[in-house]
Amino acid sequence: MAHNALDEKEISPIAKSPEVSTAASSEGGSKPKATCLQKYFSEESRNFQGSALKKTTRLLSDFIPLGTGRPHAELYPWTSSDANWPSFLNKPNGPEGTVTVPSKYTLANALTYGTALGTPSLVQFLTEHIELIHDPPYQDWAVCLTCGSTSALDIIFRTFTDRGDVILAEKYSYPGFIESAALAGVEIQPVDLDDQGLNPDRLGQILDGWDTLERPKPKVLYTIPSGQNPTGVTQSQERRWAIYEIAERHGLIIIEDDPYYFIQLGPNTASEDRNPEAVSRQLVPSYLSIDKSGRVIRLDSTSKILAPGLRAGWVTASQQVIDKYTAYHDLTTVSVSGLSQFVLHDLFNLQWGQRGFSTWLQTLSLKYTQRRDITVAACHSLLPSDICSFAIPDHGMFLWISIDVRMHPMYAAEGHIVEGWCSQVEDRILTLGLANGVQVTKGSLFFAKNSGEGAELFFRLTFAAAKEQDLAEGVGIFANAVKTEFNCREG
Amino acid sequence: MAHNALDEKEISPIAKSPEVSTAASSEGGSKPKATCLQKYFSEESRNFQGSALKKTTRLLSDFIPLGTGRPHAELYPWTSSDANWPSFLNKPNGPEGTVTVPSKYTLANALTYGTALGTPSLVQFLTEHIELIHDPPYQDWAVCLTCGSTSALDIIFRTFTDRGDVILAEKYSYPGFIESAALAGVEIQPVDLDDQGLNPDRLGQILDGWDTLERPKPKVLYTIPSGQNPTGVTQSQERRWAIYEIAERHGLIIIEDDPYYFIQLGPNTASEDRNPEAVSRQLVPSYLSIDKSGRVIRLDSTSKILAPGLRAGWVTASQQVIDKYTAYHDLTTVSVSGLSQFVLHDLFNLQWGQRGFSTWLQTLSLKYTQRRDITVAACHSLLPSDICSFAIPDHGMFLWISIDVRMHPMYAAEGHIVEGWCSQVEDRILTLGLANGVQVTKGSLFFAKNSGEGAELFFRLTFAAAKEQDLAEGVGIFANAVKTEFNCREG
Repeated sequence: MAHNALDEKEISPIAKSPEVSTAASSEGGSKPKATCLQKYFSEESRNFQGSALKKTTRLLSDFIPLGTGRPHAELYPWTSSDANWPSFLNKPNGPEGTVTVPSKYTLANALTYGTALGTPSLVQFLTEHIELIHDPPYQDWAVCLTCGSTSALDIIFRTFTDRGDVILAEKYSYPGFIESAALAGVEIQPVDLDDQGLNPDRLGQILDGWDTLERPKPKVLYTIPSGQNPTGVTQSQERRWAIYEIAERHGLIIIEDDPYYFIQLGPNTASEDRNPEAVSRQLVPSYLSIDKSGRVIRLDSTSKILAPGLRAGWVTASQQVIDKYTAYHDLTTVSVSGLSQFVLHDLFNLQWGQRGFSTWLQTLSLKYTQRRDITVAACHSLLPSDICSFAIPDHGMFLWISIDVRMHPMYAAEGHIVEGWCSQVEDRILTLGLANGVQVTKGSLFFAKNSGEGAELFFRLTFAAAKEQDLAEGVGIFANAVKTEFNCREG
Repeated sequence: MAHNALDEKEISPIAKSPEVSTAASSEGGSKPKATCLQKYFSEESRNFQGSALKKTTRLLSDFIPLGTGRPHAELYPWTSSDANWPSFLNKPNGPEGTVTVPSKYTLANALTYGTALGTPSLVQFLTEHIELIHDPPYQDWAVCLTCGSTSALDIIFRTFTDRGDVILAEKYSYPGFIESAALAGVEIQPVDLDDQGLNPDRLGQILDGWDTLERPKPKVLYTIPSGQNPTGVTQSQERRWAIYEIAERHGLIIIEDDPYYFIQLGPNTASEDRNPEAVSRQLVPSYLSIDKSGRVIRLDSTSKILAPGLRAGWVTASQQVIDKYTAYHDLTTVSVSGLSQFVLHDLFNLQWGQRGFSTWLQTLSLKYTQRRDITVAACHSLLPSDICSFAIPDHGMFLWISIDVRMHPMYAAEGHIVEGWCSQVEDRILTLGLANGVQVTKGSLFFAKNSGEGAELFFRLTFAAAKEQDLAEGVGIFANAVKTEFNCREG
């Protein structure tokens, strides 16, 4: 496919796996088709095709529509001449040469029933975006708008899991994922992670040694590869290749939940070059970009890079999976809010184009880098270093603070960690922080499976939500809560 | 609760069941609490409480938020001073005296994560609206925004049904409901309906004679009481009381899916008084308005009365059910699009107030009445009356055309109806209509359960979607398709 909208080198020169490049070129440039996924589908979703009625409405435009109960635009309380509507309604099409608007998207379009896939002009923009950034190395991939990644993840569970299934995930993970798994009756098999993210050796050991008589073998791996929630860790390129190879060998679907991919935090040194191009050069290859067999389902979200209130994101996967998304959308959310699509269409197609979107992401990364640096500096100077440790994240918005419970006075007194005690310490630090005006998040909310050891104590801090000038003060209040709990002398 | 926003008599004097009034007054004005619904909940939903992480974020406003990954407003690409944003941002609060704006709802509110219940100012407006129109006769009811009634219905299935359950519904029903039931592995037990809607005698017979050894007894009735989709029939007041009484006796939950409630079509005579007050006087009591034990789940939608692109509606039910909605929202859609809430807040709280909303609904009803009358007149003059019959709907947007297959020349030749033959006739009429420029909807899409008889032939016509001036032409094309199929002489 042609990268026609932009000079690729300028935007996102992604390093490719040599194997992938070879595979693609050995086929004379024609990409393979995705592997058949039918056997992966859940009992519920296997034969599910979506709404028959909605399929009939897709013919609507050329006929007198006496078929579907879709009110005529004259029956809405808003019209495009309404002075209360955004002025961009009547704006000409953005700066010349940046992007072609594939189709008009009017207020009447925004107010009527949307399609399960998304309005064509947005889907086309996002497809171009995916091609520019990830260029999936197989033929039949597609993009579908989602009502945000939480909704997209719910559809993953409904499409791919039956009650009693087991799903693989990082040992510490997004609570929305953990709770969705519980709701779906799916057990999480945690995989260890280290300072480079999910550990492929552990993943391989778990799968090689799986006793299928005891439990069904997992067919899905859920991972947050960049700026992982909650640990902030980003998987290296080598890690991704190693994990993808294991997925190929064991027939795993990979759910690449990647809302922090574009929040790249520059090196933590003031002297480093921080212009947008430098930031762009750091993009690591996504799983989608090395997915030669169509086993990756990539979730992107507007929540961290544009605005969470839009309740919009997009999923990229093989057409077979996208068909399930549109089928589920038909019977659940129907479509993303027309107004959210309307402002995204305005932003992407009329204002920014691909280049403008890329510039926004780079600018945003610089803002987050600054917030990260303020927070890290405060942590270094204010947290008791014998008790608290953390890695400096290079993506995302989270610091994962590990608390060494053996430094607690009660540990010296008892000589071992009493069950339930980490949880009490955690609660007291949280409560003391709140009492003094800071909110942090308990690490135990992120435990994919209660290990039973009870010797782990973490807090997750984010530098996304507070005012920039409050970050250091917030860290200070948290640090004092830790010190108080651990009976440290102030100073 | 006080009806403080409006003079109730002026808006919606709903006739109440004498029993309900007596029950309410015998308790000295204090309403009963809803019955406990725990035993009705599905295996999946029974112990489901929603997102622990999201619960922690509800504290956010008073603290330095280092807890939740909710980007600060300065990290969005839109600001309220952005010239591209709606001008109503800076407008004063609507006409004096109509409504008090309970809280500010700013662009930053619209762009950040919304709450599972809905933004307080909208929830308060809708709660007042429900109280004015329905005044539920029990204490602990509540209102929650939904991402439209299709999404709300999906949550019903997840909350109340397990695979293998049976659910009661009108014999002809909304395809989204029929397909959601199939997806959930739930069997539909169809109930006959006549010119007053769902037949309570048949409902009673089905439940009284239920063999629980053979199949689990239904605990949920799904009904579209006003302007039923597809038949257009509205249940009379007496019907509703009789059906509610059966629900009480057999312990049924009633899903009142009522998107057409406010689309009241005046009498089909030109001389009739059609001012808004006359229309208003016709509102029949909803199930919610007679629900003394909290067993009704009422679904309202913006799709038919404001605009479907908003993907917004509201559910009214006992607090126990609303808690399930917020729990499911946490792990699926999170919230209604902030932009949809933003424009609804503007419309309801800043522009309309309760009175303005009521006026809009009455005006809309007049528009639909006019469209209904044009369509009915065309049907009377153009459809072959020996083949086609229909009732004139007094709510909603649908005409349900019954075709007498015994008038078909093939019936005369064969003397009976051959299996699969109705379906072929249906397809041919649809195809012929499309070929000549009209789209109607096949009746078989609405069969809750394939009866096996194959002797029924219907088409559903709507007068909502076409341009008003195209309605008669559309009916004419459809009529010609029927006549051609039935070999009628033209003229």
